[in-house]
Amino acid sequence: MIRIKKYFVCTLICLLFISCVDKEKDKTKFGLVIHGGAGVISNIPAEKEKEYIAKLNEAIEEGYKILEQGGNSLDAVETVIKILEDCLLFNAGKGAVFNSDGINELDASIMDGATLNAGAITGVRRIKNPILLARLVMEKSVHVLFTGEGAEKFAQEMGIDLIDPEYFYTEERWKSLEKAKEKEGQTQVSDKNFIYGTVGCVALDKNGNLAAGTSTGGMTNKKFGRVGDSPIIGAGTYANNKTCAVSCTGHGEYFIKNCVAYDVSALMEYKRMSLKDAAEYIINNKLKNQNADGGLIGIDKFGNVTMPFNTSGMFRGYKLSDGKREVKIYKD
Amino acid sequence: MIRIKKYFVCTLICLLFISCVDKEKDKTKFGLVIHGGAGVISNIPAEKEKEYIAKLNEAIEEGYKILEQGGNSLDAVETVIKILEDCLLFNAGKGAVFNSDGINELDASIMDGATLNAGAITGVRRIKNPILLARLVMEKSVHVLFTGEGAEKFAQEMGIDLIDPEYFYTEERWKSLEKAKEKEGQTQVSDKNFIYGTVGCVALDKNGNLAAGTSTGGMTNKKFGRVGDSPIIGAGTYANNKTCAVSCTGHGEYFIKNCVAYDVSALMEYKRMSLKDAAEYIINNKLKNQNADGGLIGIDKFGNVTMPFNTSGMFRGYKLSDGKREVKIYKD
Repeated sequence: MIRIKKYFVCTLICLLFISCVDKEKDKTKFGLVIHGGAGVISNIPAEKEKEYIAKLNEAIEEGYKILEQGGNSLDAVETVIKILEDCLLFNAGKGAVFNSDGINELDASIMDGATLNAGAITGVRRIKNPILLARLVMEKSVHVLFTGEGAEKFAQEMGIDLIDPEYFYTEERWKSLEKAKEKEGQTQVSDKNFIYGTVGCVALDKNGNLAAGTSTGGMTNKKFGRVGDSPIIGAGTYANNKTCAVSCTGHGEYFIKNCVAYDVSALMEYKRMSLKDAAEYIINNKLKNQNADGGLIGIDKFGNVTMPFNTSGMFRGYKLSDGKREVKIYKD
Repeated sequence: MIRIKKYFVCTLICLLFISCVDKEKDKTKFGLVIHGGAGVISNIPAEKEKEYIAKLNEAIEEGYKILEQGGNSLDAVETVIKILEDCLLFNAGKGAVFNSDGINELDASIMDGATLNAGAITGVRRIKNPILLARLVMEKSVHVLFTGEGAEKFAQEMGIDLIDPEYFYTEERWKSLEKAKEKEGQTQVSDKNFIYGTVGCVALDKNGNLAAGTSTGGMTNKKFGRVGDSPIIGAGTYANNKTCAVSCTGHGEYFIKNCVAYDVSALMEYKRMSLKDAAEYIINNKLKNQNADGGLIGIDKFGNVTMPFNTSGMFRGYKLSDGKREVKIYKD
């Protein structure tokens, strides 16, 4: 009799366990976070603000759709960033700013948290969507980072058409360059009235795979050949299924020297900090103490998200499978 | 009487304390570690081996002299790397290998542990000593990383003469390229019979300031425009007075994806690991598990040194103010 009871209890426990695991599977959280750059954002006309919000919403929805349909986080990241690159509003792809020689030089990077594979390009001038090329570097080459003409040569080998650099010309960006040149001497790097235009996306898919990507047109009037943090794995972009996926925006030099994107992961892995605490500490303590402006977006393997910044604004938003959703520009 | 005794005891303790502090000041350890690349090193003729050892000794002594005379760690690092760049034996500067287009593309980086300032250049073709230019980027620009022609333009602004790329032509390196091209298809990156030619130096000066630097000619037959870990702050080079200074050599792509140089520092700062344990863990556990070859050199703020590698050899050596000294090529 006691034996039968024992078996009964064991079976009940097993059934309970299986149902819990199943529920857990159903509950698997997924979602994504995006950004369109941080900086001193003020006096945006209401009409323009609406355009920003609409584009952020569109990108979030397109990326989320992929995740919802069971697609992988890399595809979501790529899709979101491509949308932002094709839009004039953000400093990446079509909306890239001009360097001091009046040329558009674009950078991008992407990282797969499942494999730690990564791809990045810097200083390309004839690539319509740098994020697509970064992904090809990751998936179709044994290398991680290609620069300038070498990156464009690789693009051609991959069958990507090089476009006329004229594509990146916009009157607004040209005027910004002229304005920056007028101010020359007062170097724009220390100019706080500046948006660190970069776009980025981090995503967690239904299979628990994390991915991160970043794309930028650099800084208006930056010196020819200067590379910021966006194409640097560990600085502007990092993803690791063990911890989190991160994309940064800000004063690139400081983000490189502080290995910001990887540092979030290291604080989580080595110090057992939460994603939120790690990101907050880096942006609002470590970087702030160095007078370094910027922000980051992050998502961890549980679907927790964070979007800290130490500037007056950051174009940002997220959408999660638990229904939570936000799209914002300014502080709360 | 008791009061006098108390004063006497207090004075004695104070004197003892002062003498201890003074001794500690005298004892301030300083020194440096250098490397000339890791890889499958075998069958070096005895005569050539002597040349390698002699050059490593020369570089160590020149760097040490600077530290001994109270010079700073950045000067020691720069001096050591310049000596190795000017020598045909190592894959950096004069001895740089050819890329797949038969061109020499050089990279270098340097970091100051006291300020976290850093400078780096990648893909230069007409710079005799890339390490000097990296230092100028750190000290004379507001940027961290310059690529290709942009870096050379900056060099000219700094008064550095651009040299004829012919300077880097050596028959031995050209033959290596031809050999690599013959083997094409079998990509050289996964070819284990390969020395990851890079040179590097880390130093601790009498003032407790750490510095790190790395310089390379890349990989023989590498794709035009490919960037490895050497010019990437946090991957190939990192220095922070709080923890350590590190310079890496190995399969660059893995060193980038694992943010190796910064990871040593992060393990020390966040996990309270010793320099030796952190470096050993990364090279012989983390990287080995990814089938990633290479090694690193490190020195911490107390003057402890480490030189782990997971290949058959690494050109390396160190000299410390406590009299310890070693110059080696193979495993113990």
